[in-house]
Amino acid sequence: MNAEIIAVGSEMLTPDKVDTNSLHLTQELNTLGIEVVAKAIIGDDRQRLTDAIRNSWAHAELVILTGGLGPTEDDLTRDAVAAALEVGMTPSEEAWQAILNRFQKFGRTPTENNRRQTLILNGADMLPNPNGTAPGQWFHRDGRVLVLLPGPPRELKPMVAAEIIPRLTAMLPPQVIRTRWYRVALMGESDLDHLIAPIYTKYTNPATTILAAAGDIDIHLRARCETAEEAEALLAEVGDPIAELIGDKIYSTNGDPLEVVVGKLLRAKGQTVAVAESMTGGMLGMQITSIAGSSDYFKGGFLTYTDQMKTQLLGVPEGTEAVSEEAALAMAAGARDRAQSDYALSVTGFADGPNAGHVFVGLATPTGTHARKLKLNGDRYRVRCLTILNALDWLRRALQS
Amino acid sequence: MNAEIIAVGSEMLTPDKVDTNSLHLTQELNTLGIEVVAKAIIGDDRQRLTDAIRNSWAHAELVILTGGLGPTEDDLTRDAVAAALEVGMTPSEEAWQAILNRFQKFGRTPTENNRRQTLILNGADMLPNPNGTAPGQWFHRDGRVLVLLPGPPRELKPMVAAEIIPRLTAMLPPQVIRTRWYRVALMGESDLDHLIAPIYTKYTNPATTILAAAGDIDIHLRARCETAEEAEALLAEVGDPIAELIGDKIYSTNGDPLEVVVGKLLRAKGQTVAVAESMTGGMLGMQITSIAGSSDYFKGGFLTYTDQMKTQLLGVPEGTEAVSEEAALAMAAGARDRAQSDYALSVTGFADGPNAGHVFVGLATPTGTHARKLKLNGDRYRVRCLTILNALDWLRRALQS
Repeated sequence: MNAEIIAVGSEMLTPDKVDTNSLHLTQELNTLGIEVVAKAIIGDDRQRLTDAIRNSWAHAELVILTGGLGPTEDDLTRDAVAAALEVGMTPSEEAWQAILNRFQKFGRTPTENNRRQTLILNGADMLPNPNGTAPGQWFHRDGRVLVLLPGPPRELKPMVAAEIIPRLTAMLPPQVIRTRWYRVALMGESDLDHLIAPIYTKYTNPATTILAAAGDIDIHLRARCETAEEAEALLAEVGDPIAELIGDKIYSTNGDPLEVVVGKLLRAKGQTVAVAESMTGGMLGMQITSIAGSSDYFKGGFLTYTDQMKTQLLGVPEGTEAVSEEAALAMAAGARDRAQSDYALSVTGFADGPNAGHVFVGLATPTGTHARKLKLNGDRYRVRCLTILNALDWLRRALQS
Repeated sequence: MNAEIIAVGSEMLTPDKVDTNSLHLTQELNTLGIEVVAKAIIGDDRQRLTDAIRNSWAHAELVILTGGLGPTEDDLTRDAVAAALEVGMTPSEEAWQAILNRFQKFGRTPTENNRRQTLILNGADMLPNPNGTAPGQWFHRDGRVLVLLPGPPRELKPMVAAEIIPRLTAMLPPQVIRTRWYRVALMGESDLDHLIAPIYTKYTNPATTILAAAGDIDIHLRARCETAEEAEALLAEVGDPIAELIGDKIYSTNGDPLEVVVGKLLRAKGQTVAVAESMTGGMLGMQITSIAGSSDYFKGGFLTYTDQMKTQLLGVPEGTEAVSEEAALAMAAGARDRAQSDYALSVTGFADGPNAGHVFVGLATPTGTHARKLKLNGDRYRVRCLTILNALDWLRRALQS
């Protein structure tokens, strides 16, 4: 089954607006094995919208419209669908009752305009909207489906979960979906792809998706089969050789980000960490403490932006070059000592200027203190992000060894 | 002039892919006064794409296609446009020469497939692509324009700037655009809109855009007139009363984010700041140091996640409640003292759990130390972001007073 999605509303066509509903719907539909083959955003123009709906209805077995179901003249979706499908509409007493109840709950009275929201395509099911006044609609004809959903995500998402997914599932052949995740730190996307493409490109099932951020890559395998055993067997057939090729660069097999992996390892060992940062200015501490409960294993940190603070807070010997292996070593050792933690990470480097990307990371452990030099490319933000990843991944390896 | 944008490629229809090209184009077109009335993403299906192009060409004066200009069979844009417009194509010797030169530069040889990329619609201008092999195309017929652009943003954006904007500008009546920005901290979006909507909704010129993030709102006015004087007069007519209503909640009138405003104020006074963070774990330091050159005014900070670190590093008296006014005061005073800075900000609070959003912020200045209690709503990330904004805005006001 193929789907097309049409979002309605001129307000969706500004330079900063992203149609997140279509992304959510794509995610949900893909999980059912339904592919989205086209999507559009159409402004408030009845004729244009009618043409777009007619076009989608001619091409796809499932057409989903989002938005344009409000009570005003500008809300064109119902009328445009009726025109495109050449189907009449009838006011639904049930929908009107739901609107009355909702307004009553808030001590208000609906206007005559709200009557427009009760118009349901002849032959369509009215889909209740517990979070708003606009009901959804499910129209099924000759094996093809057209769905109308309200635009606000907090109304749309529950309706998709409660009404759309079950109805679609009932139409599709029974299947089981199983997934595997590999999260990989500090490999280039093209290097990684070059390594594993010979394996995954031979298979369409499981489907392999690779999402890359700076230094951080998600590999997602999704197998669709009639039984769980078949799906797991396929995942092993493709996933095991991939995992073997990438080796210990894989830091997570359940989708956890690196700071969660490190936090779980520290918690499991009952150990703690501290940080000493100059160039990253708190970003490493922020990342570690972005997880609820991180106070169990994060002792604290030292943001030493001046030589004087490095010496005073961390005992870095006076005269030590601010960006140097010696500084990174002394910072890590000083942070571990003064925070009385089991581990400490340190960062010193240049995020911009002539030596941008020239960075030292230090790691103090119960058995010794080490430092590494990094050469990173990119702007200030990217250099800081890659540094954090390097530091956390080094700690992850130390905790796992 | 109205525009429609069509992005081509099945890879754009995944749950996590955002068509950033269309956002960039919308921004650029809006600046010229061209409105985007519809946009679509079409997968790799020749017939579907041809229908979509025909539909857009029938409705809009400007149709822009992005992507699908590669050398492979899957790259359907050229063929689909030729079919939709019923126009033939001719290989361009100039385009082929550009491809040969490009490959030569990298020591490689083009394949016969690359010949497909030299096919130009009869009557269209070939648009050179200094950053890739796919040339763009500009097709102009009966006052309507259709444009083909390469998909990679680093190829598309320079081509838009060098080829598309100048050609469109030449087609449009002469006009001058002037803008005003107001950035506002710590007002709710609906409160702000309630306050200023009576003013700005009376005008379509200047156009007013309001962008809201958590606690941080951008108001953008854009006036389009025949002369700069007219445009400035309109901006003053609408902007001045808006600025008066919002008052000193406006922290920036040039688009600068709060950390830049604070940094410029500190630099201008030759003064410095330090931070002491528990709940935010480094986020405040990270925000201040996200600006190149911040080492001129940021001395450093203390991430005190344990009571012991608060006492040892900042001199917070033993037995002080970790989340309290006393703690915030002692942390700010201790940070200012030990970092030898002119100002210090402190944060202590709960980002989740039963007391989530219960936060104290402290500010130490050359003339005294103060603390404030905040009650914030939202998840861990939002509470941390709102706390940072409160702290930085307080420092901004102290520096401006």
